[in-house]
Amino acid sequence: MAKVLTSKEENYAQWYNDLVLKSGLAENSAVRGCMVIKPYGYAIWEKMKDELDRMFKATGHENAYFPLFIPKSFFSREADHVEGFAKECAVVTHYRLKTDEENGGLIVDPEAKLEEELIVRPTSETIIWNTYKNWVQSYRDLPILINQWANVVRWEMRTRLFLRTAEFLWQEGHTAHSTREEAEEEAMRMVNVYADFSERFLGIPVLIGTKTESEKFAGAIDTLTIEALMQDGKALQAGTSHFLGQNFARAFDVQFTNKEGKLDYVWATSWGMTTRMIGALIMAHSDNHGLVLPPRVAPIQVVIVPIYKGAEEFPLISEAANRIKDHLTALGISVKFDDRDTHKPGWKFAEYELKGVPVRLAIGPRDIENGTVELARRDTQEKRVLPQEGIEGYIRELLDEIQESIYQKALQFRAGNTHRVDTWEELVDVLDHKGGFALAHWDGTKESEDRIKETKATIRCLLIDGEEEEGKCIVSGKPSHRRVVIARAY
Amino acid sequence: MAKVLTSKEENYAQWYNDLVLKSGLAENSAVRGCMVIKPYGYAIWEKMKDELDRMFKATGHENAYFPLFIPKSFFSREADHVEGFAKECAVVTHYRLKTDEENGGLIVDPEAKLEEELIVRPTSETIIWNTYKNWVQSYRDLPILINQWANVVRWEMRTRLFLRTAEFLWQEGHTAHSTREEAEEEAMRMVNVYADFSERFLGIPVLIGTKTESEKFAGAIDTLTIEALMQDGKALQAGTSHFLGQNFARAFDVQFTNKEGKLDYVWATSWGMTTRMIGALIMAHSDNHGLVLPPRVAPIQVVIVPIYKGAEEFPLISEAANRIKDHLTALGISVKFDDRDTHKPGWKFAEYELKGVPVRLAIGPRDIENGTVELARRDTQEKRVLPQEGIEGYIRELLDEIQESIYQKALQFRAGNTHRVDTWEELVDVLDHKGGFALAHWDGTKESEDRIKETKATIRCLLIDGEEEEGKCIVSGKPSHRRVVIARAY
Repeated sequence: MAKVLTSKEENYAQWYNDLVLKSGLAENSAVRGCMVIKPYGYAIWEKMKDELDRMFKATGHENAYFPLFIPKSFFSREADHVEGFAKECAVVTHYRLKTDEENGGLIVDPEAKLEEELIVRPTSETIIWNTYKNWVQSYRDLPILINQWANVVRWEMRTRLFLRTAEFLWQEGHTAHSTREEAEEEAMRMVNVYADFSERFLGIPVLIGTKTESEKFAGAIDTLTIEALMQDGKALQAGTSHFLGQNFARAFDVQFTNKEGKLDYVWATSWGMTTRMIGALIMAHSDNHGLVLPPRVAPIQVVIVPIYKGAEEFPLISEAANRIKDHLTALGISVKFDDRDTHKPGWKFAEYELKGVPVRLAIGPRDIENGTVELARRDTQEKRVLPQEGIEGYIRELLDEIQESIYQKALQFRAGNTHRVDTWEELVDVLDHKGGFALAHWDGTKESEDRIKETKATIRCLLIDGEEEEGKCIVSGKPSHRRVVIARAY
Repeated sequence: MAKVLTSKEENYAQWYNDLVLKSGLAENSAVRGCMVIKPYGYAIWEKMKDELDRMFKATGHENAYFPLFIPKSFFSREADHVEGFAKECAVVTHYRLKTDEENGGLIVDPEAKLEEELIVRPTSETIIWNTYKNWVQSYRDLPILINQWANVVRWEMRTRLFLRTAEFLWQEGHTAHSTREEAEEEAMRMVNVYADFSERFLGIPVLIGTKTESEKFAGAIDTLTIEALMQDGKALQAGTSHFLGQNFARAFDVQFTNKEGKLDYVWATSWGMTTRMIGALIMAHSDNHGLVLPPRVAPIQVVIVPIYKGAEEFPLISEAANRIKDHLTALGISVKFDDRDTHKPGWKFAEYELKGVPVRLAIGPRDIENGTVELARRDTQEKRVLPQEGIEGYIRELLDEIQESIYQKALQFRAGNTHRVDTWEELVDVLDHKGGFALAHWDGTKESEDRIKETKATIRCLLIDGEEEEGKCIVSGKPSHRRVVIARAY
């Protein structure tokens, strides 16, 4: 087979882009920064959505839908929020086009100018808290536990498929509570849901921590994050959960009567995960042959490829393939029997390798004679010839084994790429030559953090289960009580 | 109980609006014409989505996602399409805001003007066909059978919750085929999927027909429609499926090599159903007490209300309620046990009546003594006392009976409100005094159709299974070979 992908070692960014395009996940559109998510990519997103949605509902949340547009003035209400979000955005100024009488085509109708511009939502705290205002009078109306599945737009100058696009798909949870404690618990509960989803479902191990003041969400008191490590040694923020305090309740005047009969502002959280996670999924596991998908998120878990020369050989092969397919389907496993006669087996092998299908079965005339089947694992590329009899039970267990094995491999990679550094020189050495997470002492000041940022790395998070340890800040030498996680990041 | 709703007879439009607001389905937002779909309304949409998505996949379709924004110039490519769609729309002209140094707040940054304006999609034929162009070379690349779940925006001046909103949610199928016949079959297949969904799932009987030239989709050769009848005698277009011919393929230059090795333009269909169907669902079945939801689309199918005076009575009631709940849940029935002590049973009865929960169970101390439960049907408001023993099996069958009964009632209503009219006077009499569908002969000319439109009614469709019958056009007296369906409509 001709090599379809640039290798990771040669050019990681090119490898990633090739892979997204050639495996049929997504492509760029005619609109700058906006992507087309193709059926295979969208099928992965659907799997992720279904699982996350199930987890949100299991923790008491309901879905709802709020407007795409937000009045410009709403952004100015929360002082920090406006700085973070209202700048690079899509602005709707008019509501009508008209025929250009002189030159043909269409022009914006100057008569149809909006009194107040509308912003295509970059995130929905403002419009949602403006709505909650009418829903909350008393503590009996709380908590409100709502999630929204939606598209959002942030005008990015430099975009990359899935990782950074002007429009992306996400979910945003927005909850309202009567006490600070309850809101803090909610923010922690949801970052744990994200971590669980990422590790158990996507096979991506994550660190859970809080962001520094300069890295937190614009409008939050605290931002909790999960941080994953990609195979090129860069970190990726994979989901965030914010404790918003009473900031948005104050901005939109959302007060309630508490159990003591006193008026108070409502406590808030918000939390989100996006199609960016598909980028993380790709970069965490895939290799130079293509995608490696953990079975739980794979749209096709098993593919069956028939191998035959004469057309007379096909009926028996097809019968065996369909029997195995039916048995696997009955076990809830998604199977594709690729019986197209327009492509050769070798082409199909390369295609499903590229698409990351976890298990491939090949059945030829000799297998029919012997009652066997050839099984290939995508993750390890191991092949075995096995009896057809009982293959379904074997595959069911194998899929669990592959899921676990992919996770363990990523976990080992992270362990091998996490470095304790005690001096500035060690940090720079790790960033420039090794990559991965650097664990270092930091004095907690903005000055030292800014100095770290000059290396193009950032403090990814302060681990929530980080150990206490006395040490000295690698920048200032001042005392520090625990290490923080530093890395270059996507 | 105080009356919560304006009655249908008193003011139908007000009844509808009251019902949407008070049953907690949706409300207006701070953005003109955009609604907030509240959790209960969104739960209905999720049920509809899940069922439609299952039906689309069962007919071979996959989901994908295309950009929210469409370059302005794309609309001018297809001559009819531009007339129908590019006029009343949300236009993005800038991509940045900046702080207003003089007055505070935010202003649009004049430096950040887009070279070409972007339109928030009112429908996606143009951006999708511009994408398909790169996907199709040969007949082997066809068919493409793709659906998209998305939000769209059409700038409406007069809006009504669900029925007509500036932003709404929908699905849009966009398929590409190598032959005219195959595309026509697809368009017919999908209008039948819509009809089946509407009748079997929502309990709304529909007529299937084609639109006239003046009523068809801008850019289509033929538009197939399903038309439902609301309780006020007005029609509602509930879903459309378009045979687009080669119009969009020509506009975006999408050619393929056919089996004979010749270049040809690709054949297309598109089809859509929207959150408007929630409006149809409400208006088809509900009454002056509130929503009446067919069991298959009801977020809560059974509610259990405990009735007790002393707290000591509660444990046994709760035990019985939870036992029934568990049994029903095991049968796949969604049950809510409302054990809140903050609201009285009478309040809860009215609340679930308003929310249209198909079956209500009440359990009091006497029921505990007698091993009984009181069951109330929402649609007929009948009540019966039944033994707890075996209640699950009874309810399972009852839910099917209610589903069928709601459909039959709507079918009878339509039969009683469908009128054969043979003269202009009869048509006007039906429209002004009876409402419903009028079946009349029409000569097929635009002139006669325009005259009909002066009554504020429209030709809803030409039935696909309409009988041949010789007659005279009610406008011109000219010969006609079959009747068309005329009604005032939403």
